[in-house]
Amino acid sequence: MKIVGKVAKRIEAHEKAYGEAKYTPDLYLDRMIYAGVVYSNVPHGILKSIDISEAENVSGIIKVATYKDVPGTNKFGVLIKDMWFLVPVGEKIRFEHDAIALIAGETKEAVEEAIKKVKFEIEELQPVLTIEESIKDEIKVHDPESNIAFHKKIRRGEIDKAFENADLVIEREFRTDYQEQAYLETQGAVAYYDGEIMKIYASMQCPFYVQEDVSEILDIPFNKVDVIQMETGGGFGGKEDVPSYIASKAALLSYLTKRPVKLIYSREHDIKETSKRHPSKSHYKVAFKKDGTLLGVKVESYLDMGAYSTLSPIVMYRTLTHAAGAYNVPNVHVDVYGVYTNKVPCGAFRGFGSPQVLFAIERVMDEAAEKLNIDPWEIRYKNALEVGAETSTGHKLEFSVGAKKTLENIKKLSNYEELKKEVEEFNKTNKIKKRGLGWSHIIYGVSLGAGGQHLDASNSEVHVFPDGTINIMFGGTEIGQGSKTAISMIVSEILGQKLEKIKVLQTDTFIVQDSGPTVASRTTIFSGNAAKDAAEKIKNNILEFLSDKFDVEKSDIEINLGYYKIKDKNFTFDEIAKMANDANVKLNESGWFKSPKLHFDMENGVGEAYVTYTYSTQLSLVEVDTLTGKIDVKKMWISHDIGKAINYDGVIGQIQGGAVQGMGHAIMEEIMQKEGKIITDNFNNYIIPTIKDIPEIVADVVEEEFPYGPFGAKGIGEPSLMTAPPSIANAVAHATGKKITKIPISMEDII
Amino acid sequence: MKIVGKVAKRIEAHEKAYGEAKYTPDLYLDRMIYAGVVYSNVPHGILKSIDISEAENVSGIIKVATYKDVPGTNKFGVLIKDMWFLVPVGEKIRFEHDAIALIAGETKEAVEEAIKKVKFEIEELQPVLTIEESIKDEIKVHDPESNIAFHKKIRRGEIDKAFENADLVIEREFRTDYQEQAYLETQGAVAYYDGEIMKIYASMQCPFYVQEDVSEILDIPFNKVDVIQMETGGGFGGKEDVPSYIASKAALLSYLTKRPVKLIYSREHDIKETSKRHPSKSHYKVAFKKDGTLLGVKVESYLDMGAYSTLSPIVMYRTLTHAAGAYNVPNVHVDVYGVYTNKVPCGAFRGFGSPQVLFAIERVMDEAAEKLNIDPWEIRYKNALEVGAETSTGHKLEFSVGAKKTLENIKKLSNYEELKKEVEEFNKTNKIKKRGLGWSHIIYGVSLGAGGQHLDASNSEVHVFPDGTINIMFGGTEIGQGSKTAISMIVSEILGQKLEKIKVLQTDTFIVQDSGPTVASRTTIFSGNAAKDAAEKIKNNILEFLSDKFDVEKSDIEINLGYYKIKDKNFTFDEIAKMANDANVKLNESGWFKSPKLHFDMENGVGEAYVTYTYSTQLSLVEVDTLTGKIDVKKMWISHDIGKAINYDGVIGQIQGGAVQGMGHAIMEEIMQKEGKIITDNFNNYIIPTIKDIPEIVADVVEEEFPYGPFGAKGIGEPSLMTAPPSIANAVAHATGKKITKIPISMEDII
Repeated sequence: MKIVGKVAKRIEAHEKAYGEAKYTPDLYLDRMIYAGVVYSNVPHGILKSIDISEAENVSGIIKVATYKDVPGTNKFGVLIKDMWFLVPVGEKIRFEHDAIALIAGETKEAVEEAIKKVKFEIEELQPVLTIEESIKDEIKVHDPESNIAFHKKIRRGEIDKAFENADLVIEREFRTDYQEQAYLETQGAVAYYDGEIMKIYASMQCPFYVQEDVSEILDIPFNKVDVIQMETGGGFGGKEDVPSYIASKAALLSYLTKRPVKLIYSREHDIKETSKRHPSKSHYKVAFKKDGTLLGVKVESYLDMGAYSTLSPIVMYRTLTHAAGAYNVPNVHVDVYGVYTNKVPCGAFRGFGSPQVLFAIERVMDEAAEKLNIDPWEIRYKNALEVGAETSTGHKLEFSVGAKKTLENIKKLSNYEELKKEVEEFNKTNKIKKRGLGWSHIIYGVSLGAGGQHLDASNSEVHVFPDGTINIMFGGTEIGQGSKTAISMIVSEILGQKLEKIKVLQTDTFIVQDSGPTVASRTTIFSGNAAKDAAEKIKNNILEFLSDKFDVEKSDIEINLGYYKIKDKNFTFDEIAKMANDANVKLNESGWFKSPKLHFDMENGVGEAYVTYTYSTQLSLVEVDTLTGKIDVKKMWISHDIGKAINYDGVIGQIQGGAVQGMGHAIMEEIMQKEGKIITDNFNNYIIPTIKDIPEIVADVVEEEFPYGPFGAKGIGEPSLMTAPPSIANAVAHATGKKITKIPISMEDII
Repeated sequence: MKIVGKVAKRIEAHEKAYGEAKYTPDLYLDRMIYAGVVYSNVPHGILKSIDISEAENVSGIIKVATYKDVPGTNKFGVLIKDMWFLVPVGEKIRFEHDAIALIAGETKEAVEEAIKKVKFEIEELQPVLTIEESIKDEIKVHDPESNIAFHKKIRRGEIDKAFENADLVIEREFRTDYQEQAYLETQGAVAYYDGEIMKIYASMQCPFYVQEDVSEILDIPFNKVDVIQMETGGGFGGKEDVPSYIASKAALLSYLTKRPVKLIYSREHDIKETSKRHPSKSHYKVAFKKDGTLLGVKVESYLDMGAYSTLSPIVMYRTLTHAAGAYNVPNVHVDVYGVYTNKVPCGAFRGFGSPQVLFAIERVMDEAAEKLNIDPWEIRYKNALEVGAETSTGHKLEFSVGAKKTLENIKKLSNYEELKKEVEEFNKTNKIKKRGLGWSHIIYGVSLGAGGQHLDASNSEVHVFPDGTINIMFGGTEIGQGSKTAISMIVSEILGQKLEKIKVLQTDTFIVQDSGPTVASRTTIFSGNAAKDAAEKIKNNILEFLSDKFDVEKSDIEINLGYYKIKDKNFTFDEIAKMANDANVKLNESGWFKSPKLHFDMENGVGEAYVTYTYSTQLSLVEVDTLTGKIDVKKMWISHDIGKAINYDGVIGQIQGGAVQGMGHAIMEEIMQKEGKIITDNFNNYIIPTIKDIPEIVADVVEEEFPYGPFGAKGIGEPSLMTAPPSIANAVAHATGKKITKIPISMEDII
């Protein structure tokens, strides 16, 4: 390989480091005005009236819009349109940040003043605030529908027999709480409608979702809604479907005023309105043989969807398929329920419904190991998947299963046997501070999988210019994860142009076809393969031309990084491009990759759930102050089988970042609410890990190549997070002897 | 055909009629500043010094730039870089509008004031102002090079023998003068460099030329120079290479200030600086047999290039290949010379060097007809080209030769025999006013031809959205000629979507590959074929999907306008698109078309000069006031063989417009100069035809299909102009008995 697998500098590093990269707030358009939102501030009620007259009279206010101003569909919802864009009078308020009115004005100050002057009355109703209250169905969030809106299941093997034949059955309830994505950049959009084309510039993961929603809400056809992703300061799932809310608000105001409209969320509004990780309650019953062999897993899991379903049914699909963990287990019985409450809607977040259950199953594995007196590494290794085995949904694995290698890798890297002794030694000599070691071993389905196959394709465009420089646009998005660099490396590898002469343009819905969302750790495989396809077309066009021009076999042309060698003569790629362009060789090509067809029985939850899987192992060393309950994560060893690592440094960065975010979820981050209203609405009270909290991390990869991935790559975006919570929880349990059954682990859980 | 060949409303009609279309002056960017140019105002001299200090101190001025500020190549020139971008001190001034300095300021007024405050000294030199002075080479415009910079020739057959064997030899000198393109919208550009990408928005025909020039002048790679064509209010060749001058000026100022810079030319500056039709002087010697058979044509033609060569060598190629006209003539001997003078550079203008010589040869044909006592229609018909014949460059015509049909068509449409009698009758009864009939019959080479094969390709992109709406971007440009509509009709024909759901995006150099210039009547063939290629790829993707889904042969799926019929069931195209998108069918495709390889001997000017040719015939009826010299064109009958007319109404519009512009050139439009400076610098003294001057026009087409054109189309952009000047000149000669040997025909030529 010329460049794939090597260390490469991020191609947008300079712009970002020097502050030149353009984020949505950096965009100023001529005659631009500012927008704000009037929120219900009540978790449950009926909107009785709106009076905007005073607000309209505030100096500098250009427009106050309500539901009456919406030209198209006044609803949101990826699967079910159960959420108002602007709540109409007479209709229900379902959470504190339902939008009542939109305001556009010359200054932010005028907008803030006008927001206060919109008068509206709400007849308040008692809110549904917990999973338990919701299940009772006494108060209905979406009257007359039941609060238990969705149910997904796996019925595989014979679960009852598994329990009959078991030597050990562990039954336990687990809870996980909210997690906020805490992206650096808050949500924001600029919209400009000139009477013909609606242009949207926004911070987002999925421009195609925004295009569809704006098109429906404003009743403008797709070919007149141009959505352009700005540099995006983090997403973590929080900018999957949510940017439609922000962009549509700006878009409506621009549609009504014909002026560019900027709407940037404050951190407070962002935390209060935008979707988080679902709180969950899961009941596990798991059967083992004496030797640790896993016989059966039975799960009943409830996800708190909040006020609207948004992406919940798709999140639940992942909860379902990951509930039984990373193991060879023949009998699986899973029920996942999505329930409505009068709280912030939950949705996409790195891991997408899987951390809740991966935490649970991994805690069970540790408890079983303890009870069966087996080392926790051993019990995992014994049950780990390998080629020829089947996943918990019965997907027979034919290739690229590095599960055991990740276990072996960490055992070796951590010098596990020595480490165990050191910890034992430490705990003998320390009374208050106790150390613990915790393993986790997970599987993660790459791609949208069987539940989202209709979106599992990607377009990428590659354009070689006459001076040899190259532009790429891919259907995924760069949201900080490094996809621009990885995909440029793929193109560089194929065409032989140096990385510094390649640029990636911001994703634009007019230019690339709907490529689904940038989620599910799918961008390297999908957009990467599509870019590879386009680059290969161009390479072939060039080689045919060169073969003809120099009277040489295509296969005798040597492509190196920066130059081609033809009959012992070197030509820079720039020279080759100039020659080819002058000979009318097509140097602008469109690439495409679509998911191999997956066979999955939705009724029974059995079959090929995803195109491929990553396998990951983590060992954590923690030190717990048993007096204060303070948890100090000392070190984490992490290994992921992600197929070929395109950009090695980038992968290690993702592993580090994901593990720290997972650590935050495990022991630090907590959304607190009062009567359905979030009170931890900024980083002074919603505490996330800082540089000072980050332990030493030993990260490494296993590269079991995936034959359908570009150069064998799978993905790393999400699996990087999920190993941390169970590994840390297991370490805390090991250190303290406490049965840890919830995250975040609070001091109260320990002391 | 579902739509091709039918009458269609222009797809951008609404935006243009309602003033919503965005032209460059309509663009306002945040923090935008205004630019102006300091000109030499001297036709020939040496720049001795520049002092910008006073100008810099004008309030509101942000930047005054001179040659010292240019980071890259400080030169222009499509073929030879003989023109300064900003003249350096010590170097030569070669025409009145050489640029000395550029100024950017907060307001146009500040810029105007600062322009006056730039002090510079020029040592004046005697200017070269005529072709005759230039040929003498006593004063050299580009010392030490000769003023006779370019020479092109045809040597075919044995010209001397032709004269020996001739029954009649006509020898005469012809002159043609400048013509100004007189586009509605003057030249203009907005440039914005944000430190990473240089974006250029401009009124132009050829964004790729601008990309290349800006890249070279600023030393920025192609993949960071994004050139986007704005709606363009006419080009006629005047916006082929010239927009680089304007865009580069705005670009340098933006590069230096990092602010958006707008530069819009006043009509006066536009007329004084930008290229016009070349004045020419041509000596013709033509041999005929008694029966009118053309035996040989010998031409020596000089084109006045002005101060810089710009596109002149390419213009001369067309002068060369069209000098012997539309006839079967075995012996051809042509010399075309391009000479420098100290005047405005001449370059591209609808017809591109051919009107000068088509006027001449057609005057010769009439004179020969008169002398041989043959009807002027007969002498043309006798010598007209047909399949199997060879053009004057020896290109054997294998298909699509409707020359004779256009002659037959007009003879019939005009009821020629009756008309002749009526004119005779009129002239008998009128003493002062005299009527005349004049024929012209021309050929026009479509495409850049053998001289520009390296640019003769085009990319087009077609994108079908999930709601069935379609966007197209093609490598050519819409400059008012109707290419957006014609190309949309081609896509509509293939895919079956209705025209009103198709939109064409403005051409953007980041998105489409270098597709050469929008000139040479090549856009319908090149961009049209490329769009057809992309649409056919999409159609094939869709049909494969439908065939699979509905278990039906692809050939059994019926594509109609707006809907597909599958097994007796109709699906709208919108429904088909939604289904296909959900099944991950690729609906965004890139199309390409390149010129069939032409074989041409450049040394002798013999071979396949163009991919195909159009053939056209015009008859004009004029009435001349022999006392005042006033010429009143009463009626024009025009027929063109342009292959398949994609948009019939659009073609007729082009024919009407071209004929009127040709009429302006023949009898009205005159650039007047004083000591090398243009004094007719606005429409108060440069007189073009208005609605009141337009006679009745009977226009019709002959559709001899071109097998390599989309649905058989050739092109109409330019041929529409060239029939008018000779036809009107011949009619005036017929009416007055005067030997008309120059255009524009002045009153003095008649009275």
